Order: sequence, then C-alpha cells, then structure tokens
Amino acid sequence: MKLLIDFGNTRVKVAASTSSGPELLYCGPADLDDVLQAVHACSPAGGIWCSVRPVSRQFEDWMLSLGMKRLSCATPIPLKVDYATPDTLGTDRLAAAVGAWSLKPGNDLLVIDAGTAITADMVRADGTFAGGNIGPGIEMRLRSLHEHTGSLPLVNRHGECPEFGFDTETAIRSGVLRGVRLEIEALVESTRREHGNLLVFLTGGDADCFDLKGKSGIFAVRNLVLQGLDCIEKYNENQDK
Amino acid sequence: MKLLIDFGNTRVKVAASTSSGPELLYCGPADLDDVLQAVHACSPAGGIWCSVRPVSRQFEDWMLSLGMKRLSCATPIPLKVDYATPDTLGTDRLAAAVGAWSLKPGNDLLVIDAGTAITADMVRADGTFAGGNIGPGIEMRLRSLHEHTGSLPLVNRHGECPEFGFDTETAIRSGVLRGVRLEIEALVESTRREHGNLLVFLTGGDADCFDLKGKSGIFAVRNLVLQGLDCIEKYNENQDK
Repeated sequence: MKLLIDFGNTRVKVAASTSSGPELLYCGPADLDDVLQAVHACSPAGGIWCSVRPVSRQFEDWMLSLGMKRLSCATPIPLKVDYATPDTLGTDRLAAAVGAWSLKPGNDLLVIDAGTAITADMVRADGTFAGGNIGPGIEMRLRSLHEHTGSLPLVNRHGECPEFGFDTETAIRSGVLRGVRLEIEALVESTRREHGNLLVFLTGGDADCFDLKGKSGIFAVRNLVLQGLDCIEKYNENQDK
Repeated sequence: MKLLIDFGNTRVKVAASTSSGPELLYCGPADLDDVLQAVHACSPAGGIWCSVRPVSRQFEDWMLSLGMKRLSCATPIPLKVDYATPDTLGTDRLAAAVGAWSLKPGNDLLVIDAGTAITADMVRADGTFAGGNIGPGIEMRLRSLHEHTGSLPLVNRHGECPEFGFDTETAIRSGVLRGVRLEIEALVESTRREHGNLLVFLTGGDADCFDLKGKSGIFAVRNLVLQGLDCIEKYNENQDK
C-alpha cells in the first residue's frame, strides 16, 4: 500500500492511495508517536508526504526507510510552477493546487485552504501555478487579539455571532468570523472579475465557516492536499514506467 | 487649557480642546514619561482622557490631580449606548463613535478604527450606539503568521504587494494587506445593503491602507477619538452650567 501524509500546523492526515483516490486512515493532532504508529500499522510500500512544519532528521530518515518521498520543489508534478522562490513555496499549497487541478484540469482555479493560516493560490488554465497569498486563520486571529492587546480576552469561536457585537465576546467573535467570511467572499468576487471562468476550491479545517459552498463554480473538498499528493504519487509512478 | 488624551495600544495622542475642535500637541509611543512631560508643559485646567490599556493607579491619581476625568461608561455622552456590557466597551470606540456623530449627527454611521485592532462600530440615525466588531489589525496579522506557525517569517508591510504573491514575503504581504482591504470594503458594502444611507468614518493609523477615501459617503478623519473626547468634554461643560 502506498501512503500519503499531510503534516499541517495542527493536524496530521494519513491516507492510502487507492485507484479511486486517497482513503483517509488517520487524522489527528500533530503527534509524531501517533503518526508513526498509524504509518507502521499499514506497512507501506512507498508513497509521498509533505509538511508545513520542520520535522526532525530522524523522522525524515524513517520515512525514507519506508520508501516514502518527501514532496519538494524538485518533485515532478503535473503543473508548471511560476514562483520566484519555488524552494520556499509551502508544499501543502502545491499539493492542494495539484489536487484541484486533478479534479478540474484546464480551468482557472483559485484554491483556498482555510486552516491555521488561510492560503489562496491561483492556477491558470494553461496549467501554471501562478502564486498566491497567505493570511491568518480564524484561531490565529482570535489568539492574536488576546495576545497583542492589553485587555482583550481569548474568545471561543463557538457562540452567538450577530451582525454587530453587543459585548466584548460577540464583538470579537463577529469581528473575526464575519471578517474572515467577508474577506474570502470578496477575494472570490474580485478574482472572478479578473478571471471570468474561475472555479474555486475550498479546503482546510475552517472551510465550513464560509457560506460559499453550493454556489456555482465553488467546490468544497475536505482533503484536497491528500488528493494532490495522490495525484503526484501516481504521476511519478507513471513517469517511472 | 482643557486637555484631551487618547491612549492607544501603540501610540498616545494629547490635544488641546479649542473652540474649533481638538488641536494636536503630542503624538508618540505609549511612553508614560513622555506623556507626563507633554501634559505638564500645558498646565491643563481639566479635560478628559481614555485608554485602551490598563494604566497604573498612580497615573490615574495624577490625572485626577490635574482635574482630568477618565472617560467611562458612566460619563454623560450625547449618544444612547445599546450594549449589553457598557462597562467593557472600549472607551476609545465610544469616543470615536461620538466624534463621528458630532460631525454627521442624525445619520446611520459605521465607524472604522484601523489600528492595532480594527474596530467597526454602528451608530444608528436615532443616536444609539448599536454595537460593533473587533478584528486584528495589519501588524497583528503579520506578527501572528510568524509567531503561530512553524516556518513563516515576520514580513514588513512595506514593499511589493501584487494580486498574488510570487515568494513567501509577497504572499504574506498581499495576503494580509489585500485581505484587510477586501474585508473592510466588503464590510462597508454589506452594511450599506442593510442601512441605505450609511455614512462611513475611517480613522486610526492604518486608515490610509484602504482605497475607500474619496468615495461617496466615506470620510477619513485622522483623530476621530480626540474629536469625540472634545465633544464629550464640551457636552459635559454645558451640562454642568
């Protein structure tokens, strides 16, 4: 079995590469022991992984010993990368872009991954990864208001979220949740004005916070990074043949 | 001379209350010694101050000894406050709302203060402060991306800001600056849909980052909190007579 592993800032996802796409085996906090156990239980015969966080040399070696490649800017992928510093491009962003492209090839794509950070990457219809943006995610915004001011509390995202807050808690919750939603919706609209036939992919743990799902040309895909890793794994298998 | 003092998260502004409004005397980092010196040089005969940060008992006493009141939820103001917990409502937000109301009374107002945090408060045409929202400001977003992720650098806001970033630095700068701009513009549009004749006030150190200025019904006022403090000071003088 070939494995696919996506190390995020807060979660790790492990999936098997199957003929019908990635099949999720493990999804949990970024705890190395748990991940090692999940991976070991599968006795993988190779595969591919990516990480947004630095990992230990030991972990890298261990992955290598299982025949698992780490996704890097040198890995062949089915997109051309138009980025000034490809070696600093988060491989999760690259994988999500490939995942979206594998599902809707030949279209202008905006790939929004809303997790710890919110990334928005552009893939052009000619198959070029054309760059993208990084902003703070919902939890990060809530935490930063508490940590970087003299007097604001740490607010839980769950609770009342009126148009305008009526106490400190609802003011912060509405400011952050409505703010992120308005920002993402405005980004989609503004990008659509530039790229008429744009298709939009939404993924990441906070993708559910947006009302965009179900709208025309917008697709919510839970594990888009794994989808991309699966596509890259198969792309390289075929190249090897 | 009556003094007006606005203690923000990063800056302090000291102004004289004059017949034509507040006249700025000092604007600098929130360093108490510098503020004390600036205030002392004016030999004030009373006035009013507000602070978003906790201040020492000693400072409060010293202000009191100069006859300067601290703006609180108990201070009479020319707006009715419809807020569940008025004692936790930032007095800078209250002062900015009063400042906007003093300039355009009798209108629905959205008061956006873009500084360390970005607050957006609603004043209804009947003179009611109707609540508001708090989100992270530009510097806070840049810092949080660096502090809360494993691998992103601290990016300076000044520099290239393309539609989509082409390296980590431009990805973060465009993500944060374009993101904030889209969020604020979308907030104004969305609030306008609910309140047809809405007027919008923009203030705070980062108000210059938005392209909204010059648009119909949008006013940029540099020292709106001081404007509000001035209005409150005069309102209370008249009440005392």
